[in-house]
Amino acid sequence: MTKETYTLLENYMLSCMEDSAHDKEHIYRVLYTALDIAGTEEGVDMDVLICACLLHDIGRREQYEDPKLCHAQAGADKACRFLLGQGFPEGFAAHVKECIASHRYRKGNEPQSLEAKILFDADKVDASGAVGIARTLIYNGQLSEPLYTVLPDGRVSDGTGDREPSFFQEYKYKLEGLYDKFYTARGTEIAGERRQAAAAFYASLLGEVSEAQQKGTAMLRACVE
Amino acid sequence: MTKETYTLLENYMLSCMEDSAHDKEHIYRVLYTALDIAGTEEGVDMDVLICACLLHDIGRREQYEDPKLCHAQAGADKACRFLLGQGFPEGFAAHVKECIASHRYRKGNEPQSLEAKILFDADKVDASGAVGIARTLIYNGQLSEPLYTVLPDGRVSDGTGDREPSFFQEYKYKLEGLYDKFYTARGTEIAGERRQAAAAFYASLLGEVSEAQQKGTAMLRACVE
Repeated sequence: MTKETYTLLENYMLSCMEDSAHDKEHIYRVLYTALDIAGTEEGVDMDVLICACLLHDIGRREQYEDPKLCHAQAGADKACRFLLGQGFPEGFAAHVKECIASHRYRKGNEPQSLEAKILFDADKVDASGAVGIARTLIYNGQLSEPLYTVLPDGRVSDGTGDREPSFFQEYKYKLEGLYDKFYTARGTEIAGERRQAAAAFYASLLGEVSEAQQKGTAMLRACVE
Repeated sequence: MTKETYTLLENYMLSCMEDSAHDKEHIYRVLYTALDIAGTEEGVDMDVLICACLLHDIGRREQYEDPKLCHAQAGADKACRFLLGQGFPEGFAAHVKECIASHRYRKGNEPQSLEAKILFDADKVDASGAVGIARTLIYNGQLSEPLYTVLPDGRVSDGTGDREPSFFQEYKYKLEGLYDKFYTARGTEIAGERRQAAAAFYASLLGEVSEAQQKGTAMLRACVE
């Protein structure tokens, strides 16, 4: 890819996500991880991969404004229109569109091409480990969701089977089990190296808040009559 | 303290922080930790301590609306007015006011009474360990601040000496060094037990993002000409 093309795509990405510093960092991490994975695979179309990584979340604003929309589908359509408008070949635009449309897990819409599988894995790697924990907590803050919920018996819920949104609910529902859902060996390997950091943080946080809650509610009962 | 008094104070606290699920959780954790610390100290006025813990952050909204205001001072004044209006004795209201006014570290305004020192320590304990990391990340999300900044040479900054706000900047500036700043032995002990979890998370996150950044920027240079 030429420097001019990269800058054109990067600037379009930045213009689509100007209000969120975090989304921008995420895009670069996904791009860098995708390049790492691509280095272990044969016959990757690097131009398609770089373009798909840069543009994979440009539909976030559309989904935010209309939660019925899927950002992967909205972003795929938007990227395709942009690329055709800029004179990229139809085959290139269609391939990038396929990658973006299938980067979010949904039944019946699995990634087909190698580049789509690499984007999918690189995006999932950014939900693994400490970085996955950090992104989830930042997202909790943006949505004003709590760290945990307290069960009717006064104990802190560990998140298992929770219906109310919280960090522990998201950890149990999404983060804890993502480590065996990669398409590439390198994606599985990077996420695997990070797994223990995420599990340790969750265990520490649960331990800290559960201990304070258990000890504290017992002491409070003794003070309040 | 009677159950009626506790419920009166709790309901007033809840009415002051209705828009933030996190602040409410934080209040209960501070209360529970303060009771834990109080169990290791002699002659604690438990009614003052419980009241000061419940009301210590009720000035947050005032500070949010006018950042020049200090939430500790605004909350102290607000709590004192509320308590006098509800018929609590003047000495009780003044003591609670002193605790709340000095719970946030500022030069020349150190906590004086034992109850003020316990509140100060319990509040700092909630900035230690995994819970301190989680609260800081949630706050980052609320303020749309990034995880880290990238240095002019392309490396991820570890936060040391950063001027731009980010999670790493806050970790280095506030979280990393708080472990020797407690007034009570039990406060020091609880925070000490949590210290390793926070340090490990920071190290993992820095390692994950630095490795991706370093490897990725080199690979990108090779692909973009």
